[in-house]
Amino acid sequence: MILACAGGVGGARLALGLSEVLPAEALVVAVNTGDDFEHLGMHVSPDLDTVMYTLAGINDPVQGWGIFGETWNFMNALEALGGETWFRLGDRDLATHVERTARLRRRESLSAITTGLCERLSVRQRVVPMSDDPVPTIVHTTEGELAFQEYFVRRRAEPRLMRVEYRGAAKAAIAPGLLAALNHPSLEAIVICPSNPYLSIGPMLALPGMREALMRRRVPAIAVTPIVGGEAVKGPAAKIMRELGEEPSPLTVARFYGALIDALVIDHVDAHLAPSVRALGLRPLEAQTIMRDRDSRTALARAVVQLAGADGERATA
Amino acid sequence: MILACAGGVGGARLALGLSEVLPAEALVVAVNTGDDFEHLGMHVSPDLDTVMYTLAGINDPVQGWGIFGETWNFMNALEALGGETWFRLGDRDLATHVERTARLRRRESLSAITTGLCERLSVRQRVVPMSDDPVPTIVHTTEGELAFQEYFVRRRAEPRLMRVEYRGAAKAAIAPGLLAALNHPSLEAIVICPSNPYLSIGPMLALPGMREALMRRRVPAIAVTPIVGGEAVKGPAAKIMRELGEEPSPLTVARFYGALIDALVIDHVDAHLAPSVRALGLRPLEAQTIMRDRDSRTALARAVVQLAGADGERATA
Repeated sequence: MILACAGGVGGARLALGLSEVLPAEALVVAVNTGDDFEHLGMHVSPDLDTVMYTLAGINDPVQGWGIFGETWNFMNALEALGGETWFRLGDRDLATHVERTARLRRRESLSAITTGLCERLSVRQRVVPMSDDPVPTIVHTTEGELAFQEYFVRRRAEPRLMRVEYRGAAKAAIAPGLLAALNHPSLEAIVICPSNPYLSIGPMLALPGMREALMRRRVPAIAVTPIVGGEAVKGPAAKIMRELGEEPSPLTVARFYGALIDALVIDHVDAHLAPSVRALGLRPLEAQTIMRDRDSRTALARAVVQLAGADGERATA
Repeated sequence: MILACAGGVGGARLALGLSEVLPAEALVVAVNTGDDFEHLGMHVSPDLDTVMYTLAGINDPVQGWGIFGETWNFMNALEALGGETWFRLGDRDLATHVERTARLRRRESLSAITTGLCERLSVRQRVVPMSDDPVPTIVHTTEGELAFQEYFVRRRAEPRLMRVEYRGAAKAAIAPGLLAALNHPSLEAIVICPSNPYLSIGPMLALPGMREALMRRRVPAIAVTPIVGGEAVKGPAAKIMRELGEEPSPLTVARFYGALIDALVIDHVDAHLAPSVRALGLRPLEAQTIMRDRDSRTALARAVVQLAGADGERATA
């Protein structure tokens, strides 16, 4: 069994790739919930939805979030009424938020709700939120403190970032499904998907016990860089690295994860960085990391799984 | 200025008729909020919406509620997720509930929100909820106590009704807009629309001071019967009358309102009841009360306005 840690789009794509090369029961996807927020009275879990919709095959592959063939009648009507429209909610997508919120109000856990929604969407892999407790990501910028979606969607990640805070993390518990996966006897590898280290994986690592669990792992942990050729494949990761005084490079990703991982998958275009990755104590694997279609996605997933197997054998040997 | 008291469909139709024969500033529509309920985390005000959509010209004339040309992608997606679908919420309609709920959470009053929504929908008449306080209608049936929408929509008004309770009415205040209309020097008539007396107008009459305000009126009050030829034009009014041991008849409507009104508009098919209406101390007016189209709607509205004028002159004389 492989545990994949994922944020939104990039994470969802690799999770989909892994789902295409592994038996359904052999994949657990732990998803960032630091992006979760209350909007228009609803609890919205953007990364969970992206992973769920992607594994269900109903995601919108062009915009990267939301549901394919979505309609926007709610949003247009809300705009006509003068409501808040900076966070786009499609008509079908809305059902997820409304249903999740209703179940949260009935005191169901986010984990249980996610399992229930996945079942309904015929997602056969196990998708678990990183935590059932709120861990809202707060972005401290030169323009002040911003809630994540305010920063990310409303302000399009434009304000200059100074520091990321995983608020509430100290009091949050790793979700039961993630904890179970980490401790599962069948666990063969931990894969950190090509998601934003600060905004998508950072919240997970901030959970008490998470770094410790990764440090004492008995299986290989492999990260796939979200930075290719000095730029982020998607989103503001490169911009944030620069703002934090780091170079947008797989090496920054390598240093960010450090001893939490054994290997880093870098893109062919960054092949020259392999020695530097090795110098940081990590095994580099060159691959085509841009997942443009099913072929490139499954090829990357297969490379990751093979690396896990190789490293696993090496670990056992 | 005419104050119309309305429930859902029948009330909205006459309000529309009145809006078509009166200047916009000469009509205030006070709307039942006893039907309001929390559903899927949203505050839903079905009668306010029906009146608002009808006056905005965006109502669905066939089903009687909701928005014309509505889409149901949210509802279908919610069904797929196993959510509650007994109360149908269209994609566009949903925006009203979400926006109203968001504003209520920001502590805006239902009155202020209604005014805001009407402005956005270009409704030029003044639409006011009967109260800004919750007055949920509870239906006591042989199958026990049911919240109004549970009874009305989910159970299709099938359980046998024993008693209607306007819960919280004793502590609720008449909304400022309705109070202002009742006391306005320009008020020329009060019209009780052909709405369900027990379920739509009853909640309004249960508000402290409402009956008293009607009793000390200095303008004519006219009700239009929702019962025609022994049956309700729409909805369960006739069934309820039978269950309460009354005959489904304009005379039951006449007795229900009693001294709160001066005149009762009955349908031509009930012309033989005119003497009985008169015997109850009310002035009967025969009219075509079924509002099938714009012509019949405006004809009824004109008849009501003329009756108000005539009674007003009589009162002044």
